[in-house]
Amino acid sequence: MSAVKSKRMPRAVREQQMMDAAVRTFGQRGYRAASMDEIAELAGVSKPLVYLYLNSKEELFTACIRRESKALVEAVQAAVEPGMPADRQLWAGLRGFFTHTAENPDGWAVLHQQASSHGEPFVSEVGALREEIVAFVTGLIGAAAREAHSDPALPDRDVAGLAQALVGAAEALAGWANVTPGVSAKEAASTLMNFSWAGLENLMHGRGWQSRED
Amino acid sequence: MSAVKSKRMPRAVREQQMMDAAVRTFGQRGYRAASMDEIAELAGVSKPLVYLYLNSKEELFTACIRRESKALVEAVQAAVEPGMPADRQLWAGLRGFFTHTAENPDGWAVLHQQASSHGEPFVSEVGALREEIVAFVTGLIGAAAREAHSDPALPDRDVAGLAQALVGAAEALAGWANVTPGVSAKEAASTLMNFSWAGLENLMHGRGWQSRED
Repeated sequence: MSAVKSKRMPRAVREQQMMDAAVRTFGQRGYRAASMDEIAELAGVSKPLVYLYLNSKEELFTACIRRESKALVEAVQAAVEPGMPADRQLWAGLRGFFTHTAENPDGWAVLHQQASSHGEPFVSEVGALREEIVAFVTGLIGAAAREAHSDPALPDRDVAGLAQALVGAAEALAGWANVTPGVSAKEAASTLMNFSWAGLENLMHGRGWQSRED
Repeated sequence: MSAVKSKRMPRAVREQQMMDAAVRTFGQRGYRAASMDEIAELAGVSKPLVYLYLNSKEELFTACIRRESKALVEAVQAAVEPGMPADRQLWAGLRGFFTHTAENPDGWAVLHQQASSHGEPFVSEVGALREEIVAFVTGLIGAAAREAHSDPALPDRDVAGLAQALVGAAEALAGWANVTPGVSAKEAASTLMNFSWAGLENLMHGRGWQSRED
């Protein structure tokens, strides 16, 4: 008995192994095509054990979305040091984001493609992640704008729109970087930094592109 | 007989009416929740006639995606006058894009939310639209970069990444603008122009944000 017991992994560890296998399978084969047999085999456990722990394919997928969302948000937040100049904070956040999505392509595929393309409740789950990231970016841009003491101050609605634009651009670039051979996380971050920083800095100082005709 | 005949609408006209009703219903209620009964009623025709013309809910939805995609691409292309300076072209394209998505909120909801969140074959249909828009934007940025004669020239891969970023930002902003009271198409276009133009212009002239530490 004790020999058997010592071989037993704690439930939490085994669950993580199952979810590692699930993220890999869902990310690479897609939610529909992925089978519980495949996931169990990859995790090195029996299929009934997967069902015992995670209940159903739907609940397993939901658990994967939550785990990968949490990991992504934490990676971005950990990368940004409050108190740095605004451009350094943005650069650090972008580096954190693209490094995480490059190192976890299956997790990113689960969030960016699979979760959003298989209806509810998954669309809402990944929508919650998006809102969290947008709120974080809104906070960064708002703080930077206040620091810049622009006059007139950048309206909250503009800050909200800019956060949407930046997050949308980052999502699109991460998807592209992960399927384009040879694009590193640093290059992707650099592309977006170059794309967005000059405009953001101008806006924070009350400058912008001026339409000459309309 | 001739009285009845004269009341008959040509098939193409009736089909457009059915698709107008379908886009509105799919956009407002979602693909799953929308019923063929509802669509037929809104179009003022019998349900069998909808099936006769469009075969199935899936084919009707696919037809809606194609029609709305085509209309969006044409609106953007029509807005851009080749030969104008690069910033005017971008501004005109953004105005065209946001005006179209604001004027056709149901069509945009079909493309941006519904088509991408209900699996295949819809995800591929809307993916084809995205590729067409990205290709058009890639052409614009590439032409502008060549005009600017930057030295070294902006590499094709950077142009491709920038097009991804711009399209991702535009998609996110259009979704946000359509659910945020009081954000006009012109404001959304202006936000994205201010956000993106300074960075693009810098890149076209071989300038960019310089990381000071890494």
